[in-house]
Amino acid sequence: MNMNNLSFFLHLNKFGLKVKFMDKVKVIFEPQKVVLVGSSRIREKVGMASPQLFRNVVYNMRKLFRGKTYVLDVDGKAGYNKLSKLPKIPELAVIMLPPKQSIEQAEKCAKIGVKALAMITGGYDDEQRQQLLKLKEEYGVRILGPNTIMGVINTTNGLNTTFERNVMPKKGKIAFIPQSGGVGACLLDWACFYSIGVSKFAFVGDKIDVDDVDLLRYFGNDKNTKVICIYMEGIKNGRKFIEEARKIVKKKPILALKGGITQESAKRAKSHTASIAGSDEIFDAAFKKAGIIRVEDIEELMNAAVALSKQPPMRGDNVAIVSNVGGPAILAADTVVRNNLQLASLSEKTKKKIESSYPGVDATNPIDMIADARAERYSRVLELVLADKNVDGVLIINMLKSCFFEPEDAEVIPETAAKYPKKPVVDVPAGGEDFTFVYKVLGNTDIPLYNLPEKAVKALKILRTYGKIIEKH
Amino acid sequence: MNMNNLSFFLHLNKFGLKVKFMDKVKVIFEPQKVVLVGSSRIREKVGMASPQLFRNVVYNMRKLFRGKTYVLDVDGKAGYNKLSKLPKIPELAVIMLPPKQSIEQAEKCAKIGVKALAMITGGYDDEQRQQLLKLKEEYGVRILGPNTIMGVINTTNGLNTTFERNVMPKKGKIAFIPQSGGVGACLLDWACFYSIGVSKFAFVGDKIDVDDVDLLRYFGNDKNTKVICIYMEGIKNGRKFIEEARKIVKKKPILALKGGITQESAKRAKSHTASIAGSDEIFDAAFKKAGIIRVEDIEELMNAAVALSKQPPMRGDNVAIVSNVGGPAILAADTVVRNNLQLASLSEKTKKKIESSYPGVDATNPIDMIADARAERYSRVLELVLADKNVDGVLIINMLKSCFFEPEDAEVIPETAAKYPKKPVVDVPAGGEDFTFVYKVLGNTDIPLYNLPEKAVKALKILRTYGKIIEKH
Repeated sequence: MNMNNLSFFLHLNKFGLKVKFMDKVKVIFEPQKVVLVGSSRIREKVGMASPQLFRNVVYNMRKLFRGKTYVLDVDGKAGYNKLSKLPKIPELAVIMLPPKQSIEQAEKCAKIGVKALAMITGGYDDEQRQQLLKLKEEYGVRILGPNTIMGVINTTNGLNTTFERNVMPKKGKIAFIPQSGGVGACLLDWACFYSIGVSKFAFVGDKIDVDDVDLLRYFGNDKNTKVICIYMEGIKNGRKFIEEARKIVKKKPILALKGGITQESAKRAKSHTASIAGSDEIFDAAFKKAGIIRVEDIEELMNAAVALSKQPPMRGDNVAIVSNVGGPAILAADTVVRNNLQLASLSEKTKKKIESSYPGVDATNPIDMIADARAERYSRVLELVLADKNVDGVLIINMLKSCFFEPEDAEVIPETAAKYPKKPVVDVPAGGEDFTFVYKVLGNTDIPLYNLPEKAVKALKILRTYGKIIEKH
Repeated sequence: MNMNNLSFFLHLNKFGLKVKFMDKVKVIFEPQKVVLVGSSRIREKVGMASPQLFRNVVYNMRKLFRGKTYVLDVDGKAGYNKLSKLPKIPELAVIMLPPKQSIEQAEKCAKIGVKALAMITGGYDDEQRQQLLKLKEEYGVRILGPNTIMGVINTTNGLNTTFERNVMPKKGKIAFIPQSGGVGACLLDWACFYSIGVSKFAFVGDKIDVDDVDLLRYFGNDKNTKVICIYMEGIKNGRKFIEEARKIVKKKPILALKGGITQESAKRAKSHTASIAGSDEIFDAAFKKAGIIRVEDIEELMNAAVALSKQPPMRGDNVAIVSNVGGPAILAADTVVRNNLQLASLSEKTKKKIESSYPGVDATNPIDMIADARAERYSRVLELVLADKNVDGVLIINMLKSCFFEPEDAEVIPETAAKYPKKPVVDVPAGGEDFTFVYKVLGNTDIPLYNLPEKAVKALKILRTYGKIIEKH
């Protein structure tokens, strides 16, 4: 695909020959060459067009994107000033001008054979949206947005069109489709701050062309994505969405956070993203039918996604709790029962082995291994519990404060868990500082960490829910 | 109270003259002089006696306590080696030896007129507990513990008997009574890490003498405590506890987190803190009767305590949401309705004022002030909303990412909120990094901050619940 001159491309396009080397939605995430179109002069607040934001995206693309970025400043100060001057045809154009100028530039891009457009800025009226959509009909170009605000992120190739400088999450297996710039920005900020591994972000904006179904399909086939997270206010093509989701959940889980569940907030959602929110019950039923797992808030979404991206689904209801403190283990046990999971009844053999090895330890689940438990005891008890056929998943609590446990002791957890790859293990270094200390040791392993026992139980519950979805679908 | 010789004190005590200058429970938190009794040699894991832990408490007391600390090493290496050598009689003895030696030292302390004992270490059997209790009968000494593990913290005078070095929360208005060393350590770690203002911590341990009722009464009268938080597994003197609580909640709120709500975890709680957990429904009814507010987990406890320590109770159900992003405001609105609060209907006058000042802003609650809102707009809209008689409390959302808001803009929030001291205001800089940026600006003000809208709504719900409790009691 090293075609060295523009006229050859124009020629191909003129005669309607479709270059089918790549699905065009894929181009939005995996382009080789991108043109970034903005202005070093135009400032318009409502649609978020400004020289500063343009500079920020230029900075991100140049610093982070490992493909080629051409910068096109319609005012001619930075980079190129005309499309015709680009040495090669880019596959993707990222356009961040006010509506009128954006549409002009979009058409020019479509004409020369750009395959996809990411329309960052907002403020479009219906007529302008229609003008944009015509470009798809006329040139076959795919359009993300407009009004995507934050645009697209791909941690594999470094593509990052967000207008915050250098906000790039860690590479990982979780993809996000936020139907709101604000929620998306919050998810992104959360992922960066808590080092959550992300594959891709797609801020869908007004969805005149590329919609949730397109993105679901793309993420469903994306080998770098293991979990798909959606923040949804409304849906246009519900039936297709459910069909697509049903296919995908067999191989990877889909999590959904639904905004606008009440009459009042639905009204706001309508003016916010022009979506028909529909009744909460209908969504609930649709999600169940599709095998989509519904979560209650942003933190639960993140916690669930991390669990699903790192651990296997749970194949039964029985949870063992292994702790070096009593109280937090009791709170974990309470939450297990509240969430309709079971406290595993350990076999007599398992109990005897634990109690004979560690006098003073009562091996009734939840197991309180006492405050002096360190790596050796954690490793042995975890292994015994994982080997017990009455156990489907394990929740570990390892506090530092008030205990002898040192952060490095946590290294035995992923080592031991790896011997039983079919049973999920989650870890709770409960609290604030304790959590960050253990996070430094385990953050890059496959063990999901939670700062409170209740959150870890909810993560196991999600793993169980996905286990049931796979069995059923 | 400057009595300069030991014999005078011994004399007073011998003749049974009670020095009633101070309630003896108060001495546990507000001593002038403390003797810390440990060993630089003895190591016993189960009860947590060790030279290292002893050294840590010595370090904490010397570094943090603003009264006088005498260190008594029964092995004579550090500090004094005999009680009789102390220049003055301490009011409080903190004892951290194995049971047998602890009891010996406790008796010696009681004999010379020490008024209260904090028995840090554990591992006592029933007989040993009885021996300890006899000291109360014989000498009138009050006993905290044994097995308090972390002991006592008072941020006003720097008293800190925890055996983690230099773990001292910020001074504030929240008191904690954790019936579990592990949960207490987690609360303490959380408070330190998130800079939550604490008045006192009392780790009650086995409660052979000083119990929840004593501590409730003390915290109820403590002018430095505005909110009381209890982690409870069981209760010995339920009727008295409820009576005491009913009195206190008229002037300050009590929050309770109950562990051991299920049959399985209750069994564990019994062996953990020797408490009869009782059925969950009974506790629920008792809490309601007492006006105690029940919370679901440690984070909710902390979030609620911060709200109650900084903001007034909410006098009605009507919440206004003021945001610079759409999606998170919708999630907040959903949670308002889910929690049986109301989205306030703003008066036409308020709406008109907002909409005429800021074209493009739709002043229907939840109010989306659009991404370019900065200090001036936040200040004006917040003031208009607070002045509206249809509004009982306000939830603010101010995201940085995807918006123009700068952390310093947040300064207008406490300024404006202070003009309406009867209406609670909470703030949500949603996310990870965004939250920490705004926390640097508002963390030391009276505005409680939450990293997600759902948590802020729950805090408002607690403020509403306390409002109802005051009306009723």
